[in-house]
Amino acid sequence: MPFNLSLAEREGAGLKRTLPVIERVDGRRLYVDGEQYLNFAGNDYLGLSRAPELLAAAEQAARHYGVGAVASPLVVGHQAIHRELEAELCDWLGLEAVMLFSSGFSANQAVIKALLGKEHSLWQDRLNHASLQEAGLLSPARMVRFGHNDMNALEAKLKPAAGLIVSEGVFSMDGDTAPWPELVRLARVSNNWLMIDDAHGLGVLGREGRGTLNEQGLAPNSVNIFMGTFGKALGVSGAFVGGSRALVEYLHNFGRSYIYSTHLPPPQAAAVLAGVRLVRQADDRRAHLRDLVARFRAGVAGLPLQLLPSATAIQPLVVGEETATLKLADALKQQGLWTGAIRPPTVPKGSARLRITLSAAHTRADVQRLIDALHSAL
Amino acid sequence: MPFNLSLAEREGAGLKRTLPVIERVDGRRLYVDGEQYLNFAGNDYLGLSRAPELLAAAEQAARHYGVGAVASPLVVGHQAIHRELEAELCDWLGLEAVMLFSSGFSANQAVIKALLGKEHSLWQDRLNHASLQEAGLLSPARMVRFGHNDMNALEAKLKPAAGLIVSEGVFSMDGDTAPWPELVRLARVSNNWLMIDDAHGLGVLGREGRGTLNEQGLAPNSVNIFMGTFGKALGVSGAFVGGSRALVEYLHNFGRSYIYSTHLPPPQAAAVLAGVRLVRQADDRRAHLRDLVARFRAGVAGLPLQLLPSATAIQPLVVGEETATLKLADALKQQGLWTGAIRPPTVPKGSARLRITLSAAHTRADVQRLIDALHSAL
Repeated sequence: MPFNLSLAEREGAGLKRTLPVIERVDGRRLYVDGEQYLNFAGNDYLGLSRAPELLAAAEQAARHYGVGAVASPLVVGHQAIHRELEAELCDWLGLEAVMLFSSGFSANQAVIKALLGKEHSLWQDRLNHASLQEAGLLSPARMVRFGHNDMNALEAKLKPAAGLIVSEGVFSMDGDTAPWPELVRLARVSNNWLMIDDAHGLGVLGREGRGTLNEQGLAPNSVNIFMGTFGKALGVSGAFVGGSRALVEYLHNFGRSYIYSTHLPPPQAAAVLAGVRLVRQADDRRAHLRDLVARFRAGVAGLPLQLLPSATAIQPLVVGEETATLKLADALKQQGLWTGAIRPPTVPKGSARLRITLSAAHTRADVQRLIDALHSAL
Repeated sequence: MPFNLSLAEREGAGLKRTLPVIERVDGRRLYVDGEQYLNFAGNDYLGLSRAPELLAAAEQAARHYGVGAVASPLVVGHQAIHRELEAELCDWLGLEAVMLFSSGFSANQAVIKALLGKEHSLWQDRLNHASLQEAGLLSPARMVRFGHNDMNALEAKLKPAAGLIVSEGVFSMDGDTAPWPELVRLARVSNNWLMIDDAHGLGVLGREGRGTLNEQGLAPNSVNIFMGTFGKALGVSGAFVGGSRALVEYLHNFGRSYIYSTHLPPPQAAAVLAGVRLVRQADDRRAHLRDLVARFRAGVAGLPLQLLPSATAIQPLVVGEETATLKLADALKQQGLWTGAIRPPTVPKGSARLRITLSAAHTRADVQRLIDALHSAL
């Protein structure tokens, strides 16, 4: 047999992954085996996945368009609802053009594959998302990783006009933000392109939830490529890539996962569109989320665990060792609280953590229960 | 500027792609600028994208689960509806285990990336889908292409126990099927693994629509990896990979686009589940589709164009030159018929074609209109 499917090594290291048996999840609660838990493990930061506006939009689109696009975008898959969503995204984020993908993974791979050849360099933060790391590893371009948010290290490694710098708005496993004004400056002086993956900042940060760049006082065209996803604050699934019209037209021609995939289902596009409209007016939800974040951070300040410096919905408590992390997650489960135990290789070795995520769907009492449970478990 | 986004070369060659401005599509009709066309360009082979059963299932799931899974599968995204769909797919296709992806592109990339290292070989048909070609090109494995359906060429290129042979059930741009009994034999004698991408055979061919292997009298475990999609006969979007439990558990641990993507939205999973249940009982739809295919082939037999040998829903008329292909598609549009003009690089140079797709949603009169229009246009 040419392939070895053994997981013994992972199992031995306590790192084998298995699917948890969950009945269902909503923004705030999670149901397993007839038991109900408070959910602090999802990415539904504004609690939109069950918003009536999104459900109604999806139902209406299914009746008008059907449940699938059932063709790739360049054949006959791209329909009025997709154009409406693209237009709303451009208006919201101040982008000239955008295009839709079925996942952030596909979007990042398409961009990097279409743009970078072996003559290019790709500089990326060591903690960038797996989709960016994998695209970089598979790309013929020279991939250069720099230390997390270390702008001096990046500056030392840059070459003029040689490729693309990519970083995240909000880092998915740490919750901190990248220093975008400095990234923009370095890209400009070195004459390289700059891309943001703002999967976890979009909807949560900035005016109208426009994301990390807006939060940091930067215009959307400070970057050449603006990538975001629909599976976090927007409550659905899928992704977009935006920028200049020339960029988007180029990717229509060379973004292979775009060209050769069935287009986003119309009900999904309609739900995202309703989500964007809600998000733009969701200052109350964002204020409530900020309040929960502040309460949580104050409440766990005395714990003998490292709470990473994060002002976003992602609040990681670093435990370190994998077994201890699983044990703490289990202790919280006993008290009716579900958190994500994140282990290598998703995070660096020795930094296993509870990735606690807060949502505007939570109440102050929910967060207090979590604080109390952490104190009693430790 | 480090990147050149010029499309001048493509434009000069008449190969620049632009999104068509379509209002909406259903299995049979397509609407543009207030005009209505018969749609012969989609992949909704059984006309399920507007089936009431799928719409009702999606609506119910949205109310129960929300419009998004809003987490990756290994965190808290994988819920009861996903397990129900996996179980139905296993039962339908005779597979031990399956896993769900947001697109066929992601599924193929995950499999090839997770399994093949630089010590492996990947043999694939020259006409395999772009997702397989791209995964092969990006993989460190040695990629070996063989002539379309040329089993002698494949046999000559095989090395023992060195990797994976992958081919399609039904080729997406040609509509013909691969010789699976011979592929199975070659994989066995050479002790290599075998993978089928049955995106376009599933639902259309075989008992209960089980696909190309079943149509050719082969058991599902004749292959090591069974990949199929939900965006064609099943009427929705997304994909699955199935095989042994060991394979699926391995991919849960090493399939990065699976691990690091938001899971399939519950309404989408529910619609696919309803679709599978319909497809299993859709002998009437399949018989109607076969009748339309036979009528179409008989009706265009006298045309001065090459009709490729295909018994499936994909009926390509090869024109050859790109401008002539676009001209013919335009002439059909004048008569209210929409067909896909497929040009390089999607198909080999000199083989531009109308990719005509039939659907069980079409009537005999629809197909007669297409036949008459082709005769009058040529």
